[in-house]
Amino acid sequence: MTTSPRETTLLDQVLEAYCGTSDPRWNVIAAALIRHLHEFVDEVKLTPQEWMTAIQFLTDTGKQCVGPRQEFILLSDVLGVSSAVDDISNSASGGVTESALLGPFYAEGSVPVERGADIALDGEGERLVVQGRVLDRRGMPIPGAQLDIWHTAANQLYAVQDPRQPAMNCRGKLLADADGHFEFRTRKPVAYPVPTDGPVGQLLSKSGREPMRPAHIHFIISAPGYQPVTTQVFTHDDAYIDADAVFGVKPSLLAKYHRNTDRALNCDWVLRYDFVLDEERATQ
Amino acid sequence: MTTSPRETTLLDQVLEAYCGTSDPRWNVIAAALIRHLHEFVDEVKLTPQEWMTAIQFLTDTGKQCVGPRQEFILLSDVLGVSSAVDDISNSASGGVTESALLGPFYAEGSVPVERGADIALDGEGERLVVQGRVLDRRGMPIPGAQLDIWHTAANQLYAVQDPRQPAMNCRGKLLADADGHFEFRTRKPVAYPVPTDGPVGQLLSKSGREPMRPAHIHFIISAPGYQPVTTQVFTHDDAYIDADAVFGVKPSLLAKYHRNTDRALNCDWVLRYDFVLDEERATQ
Repeated sequence: MTTSPRETTLLDQVLEAYCGTSDPRWNVIAAALIRHLHEFVDEVKLTPQEWMTAIQFLTDTGKQCVGPRQEFILLSDVLGVSSAVDDISNSASGGVTESALLGPFYAEGSVPVERGADIALDGEGERLVVQGRVLDRRGMPIPGAQLDIWHTAANQLYAVQDPRQPAMNCRGKLLADADGHFEFRTRKPVAYPVPTDGPVGQLLSKSGREPMRPAHIHFIISAPGYQPVTTQVFTHDDAYIDADAVFGVKPSLLAKYHRNTDRALNCDWVLRYDFVLDEERATQ
Repeated sequence: MTTSPRETTLLDQVLEAYCGTSDPRWNVIAAALIRHLHEFVDEVKLTPQEWMTAIQFLTDTGKQCVGPRQEFILLSDVLGVSSAVDDISNSASGGVTESALLGPFYAEGSVPVERGADIALDGEGERLVVQGRVLDRRGMPIPGAQLDIWHTAANQLYAVQDPRQPAMNCRGKLLADADGHFEFRTRKPVAYPVPTDGPVGQLLSKSGREPMRPAHIHFIISAPGYQPVTTQVFTHDDAYIDADAVFGVKPSLLAKYHRNTDRALNCDWVLRYDFVLDEERATQ
């Protein structure tokens, strides 16, 4: 693990110093990380002043991580890195529902609700009915599949962010029927900004980027014998659908909201979306 | 500044979102950074667990930056990034003294000392006399050139780290004579560890790297009309000369310590080292 002073290149020295451990995965990751770091610095001919700006940015980002606020995850999100990692580990094919980020506002412990229940407890916003089925790859229903659901209230905040909301506002756990059908009532989700009062907000501002996420509903769909999927269903005509601050939108996750014409349904909007789960892999 | 949801690749979307500002330098840096980040993630197929480990490491590194402790600079140092940045902005040629990192233990306000003065005020360690000249590229002396000097005491600590040392221990400012000569007395510097009680220490440990820096004396050499140089002169036979934790060693900065044979000099070691400064560039 010794290095020769500059007889080899600096990069070779650093690679040699970190990538000869007994952990092959570590060696691969360290080598790629070090190579890309040094190539970046060399390509742009980073100046000491720019380097110091980067050091200060990373330091500020670390200091912004207090309590539930995780500015490094937010940084990863707005640079598309979180979505890239998600894509790698969750490549769906054959019609299986694609994944999207879990996001920072998921909370365990949502309460079970009955079919058709209204999960919007604060009564704010446009009334929405969501209907769909949970299916397998052959189009057969998955009875009893569980949907863990959460989205923002009309004030752009999730219940876990906002002590003024009922704790279970706009969230709940629902089971699909024997024929795979599910239905719940809520309020139409709205676009909202990621936190902008920290270093990531400055980064977005410097880049001329909006901090907005297009409106979406989060789902975790699971059923015994199937691979669970964590995903987000987006409002297809949201103003920010082409400029999601965290690059979470995929065409297959766009859903069209229909103006309700059925008086009996007693709502403003209807959303229909089916989820498709893949069988659990034999070797786990 | 809009992005199309996954009609283009994720990387293309991110590049488009950040690299179209009115600041051309920003666009270049952002593009390279984003491309290398995404290529890294894709090359190693980073898993969500590994990503979370990285997020936690960066967060911990930020939290370790308290007071004078700057763990992100230390991280940059031990990954060779600081030396890479220094190399880019300080490429010496034609015999001009090469640069090395300023390091975290430089303090302004060292007091001027006379030729031959002893800057080791605590009297610990092996007695050393340092002699040399400050020259221009043609080998002509630079009279009155200033040497700002600092190094560890025998206990492996710099005076600025160690309230038990006299404030001016092992540091001082010295002027070269009319013939460019300088001379001072001190104690032989010793190898020392970088801080290991934070995330960077864990990184070094995981990689099987020693946290040690080979013994060295820091210098900032300056004179009117010349480009100043910040550098470190290393003890050529130090046990860690080939394994500097921060990759600061360059062959031209190795200096041989000679056992003293001159009784009149009244010391254990003699170090002779000449510095060469380049003329100030006309356009600044």
